[in-house]
Amino acid sequence: MEDISSVLPWPLRHENIARIEGGKLLIGRRDRLPFERSFLEVGGAEGAAKAIKDMVTQGGGPLEAGLRAIVLEAMKGATLPELRKAADLLSAARPTNRTLALELDRLLGDLEGFGGKDGLAEKAESLVVDRLSDYDRRYESMGRLGSDLVPDSGGVLTTCFAEHSFFLSLHFARGAGKDFTVYAMETRPWFQGARLTAPGLLEMGYPHRLICDNAAGYVISAGRAKAYMTAADRATGLKWVCNKTGTLSCACLCKAFGIPYWAFSVGLDPHDGEIPFSDIEERFPREVKLSMGHPTTEEGVDALYPCFDIVPPEYVTGIVTPEGVLR
Amino acid sequence: MEDISSVLPWPLRHENIARIEGGKLLIGRRDRLPFERSFLEVGGAEGAAKAIKDMVTQGGGPLEAGLRAIVLEAMKGATLPELRKAADLLSAARPTNRTLALELDRLLGDLEGFGGKDGLAEKAESLVVDRLSDYDRRYESMGRLGSDLVPDSGGVLTTCFAEHSFFLSLHFARGAGKDFTVYAMETRPWFQGARLTAPGLLEMGYPHRLICDNAAGYVISAGRAKAYMTAADRATGLKWVCNKTGTLSCACLCKAFGIPYWAFSVGLDPHDGEIPFSDIEERFPREVKLSMGHPTTEEGVDALYPCFDIVPPEYVTGIVTPEGVLR
Repeated sequence: MEDISSVLPWPLRHENIARIEGGKLLIGRRDRLPFERSFLEVGGAEGAAKAIKDMVTQGGGPLEAGLRAIVLEAMKGATLPELRKAADLLSAARPTNRTLALELDRLLGDLEGFGGKDGLAEKAESLVVDRLSDYDRRYESMGRLGSDLVPDSGGVLTTCFAEHSFFLSLHFARGAGKDFTVYAMETRPWFQGARLTAPGLLEMGYPHRLICDNAAGYVISAGRAKAYMTAADRATGLKWVCNKTGTLSCACLCKAFGIPYWAFSVGLDPHDGEIPFSDIEERFPREVKLSMGHPTTEEGVDALYPCFDIVPPEYVTGIVTPEGVLR
Repeated sequence: MEDISSVLPWPLRHENIARIEGGKLLIGRRDRLPFERSFLEVGGAEGAAKAIKDMVTQGGGPLEAGLRAIVLEAMKGATLPELRKAADLLSAARPTNRTLALELDRLLGDLEGFGGKDGLAEKAESLVVDRLSDYDRRYESMGRLGSDLVPDSGGVLTTCFAEHSFFLSLHFARGAGKDFTVYAMETRPWFQGARLTAPGLLEMGYPHRLICDNAAGYVISAGRAKAYMTAADRATGLKWVCNKTGTLSCACLCKAFGIPYWAFSVGLDPHDGEIPFSDIEERFPREVKLSMGHPTTEEGVDALYPCFDIVPPEYVTGIVTPEGVLR
């Protein structure tokens, strides 16, 4: 395919996710989009871990920021045990992000195999570049598979920010002459749909409508959406999906009104079965009581913020993986 | 029952909805709650109609504000034709609010029957007071019926601001020793759940959790909510319900996970059957792109704001009316 960057919106291009420049790691500030295209400059793994924890970058961002932070540490002369410690720090920054932990562990294994010789930094860099290119190939494969699932005409509903696989699906679907409108849910409390997805759709010139999360029922029941597509924070071989809060409501509506729900997963969870509720991360209640930093309710009100939904297999039409669609 | 006011939160007490004082109509500013308990002072029907249109008051508020605006006009010496014109202006302020239009028409009919004699203002006032007392009796009846449907223990999910019937149901349920927690959906884009319901629950000392609208799936699937209860902007004898956007997703989840959905309706729609999509009010897309007055997305993004969901009968367990529960 052509360079992946040219068909993806600004926040999804490698150089805008995380890059090393002048001995620093520059992390694209997803938390300030779309109002400001800026970078947080950190000196190494510790700063990168804090940025991930503070949600400066999110979704697929921490993977690139984390891997590049290890490269930067190696460039600064860190030893193998120091790199292992840095990797552990990065993995712990967002405990539900298993891809990051998995890839860091793999990178460290490869570097430990290479040994503590000269050229460790160059080795780290080439491993990371190869690994990210491999991800690009996987995204492309998912994009091609996904484009077949985009309806020939009519709406596609999506939650949160489904990143490369979803935007590449739209790219290939447009190339195939499909005539779609994307209904992007705003995704409270962090508004990833409003801040990342909708501006990305605008940038790529795709017809779209931003909706409040509660309008998914209207969009589906009124026949405006013909398919629902999301990323999957986790997906298992038995077709359980764990994804951003709000996914279950939509999947349930899809089944009730007879439209398909497709989830993208770059790699199925080795744990094959049901995902337990005890795995759901609860974040701070105060995040529910704020909207774009402004209070929405009284100080004393109690709140609850579960970050993910667990979607049982009967509500999932299929999982799009790089190797094919699991139905 | 005891005085209805003493068991209801601040925004639901008659004097805080709308009252005549010093030759002016004082309308409780629901749009500024919970941050400010204040009133908009208007001189008559024209000002009241504008306040309703601008959503200064909403839900059940326009009914009281509208009826009292007619009383004020009569006190100021308006003739019967002038009162009819004022009623038409008020009815047109929020076209989906059929109760307001119905009650204004009824009031004007009664006043026209009374004739343009002396004492028109006193007559208008006594008719309005009687009518609102009648509503209180109906709310009380719905509250008693609703309290039986509140689970003995566990959670009750609710959308938007279900007002008197819901808060009275909780009051009687607590009196009956029930041990519940209310999960209040924040209800974007206007945050009625965050601004009105959750602070009301806090004021009355009811255990509660404010959630983002998209967390209803988690609350139901994790077994936290045992019932779902909402108001109904319209309900028909065949058990179709029209209510705030988001209701359909929840009703659909209720059916999938086996918990009941109860809607409160103070009067069934005389049109008995299905509610058509053409009846759904779409408000301004810019309201979706703002949150508490602050932009959530880029200027150029397209948005869609459907105000209501139509819930088909198979997703409605029952409609609580003053006369009984329609199942």
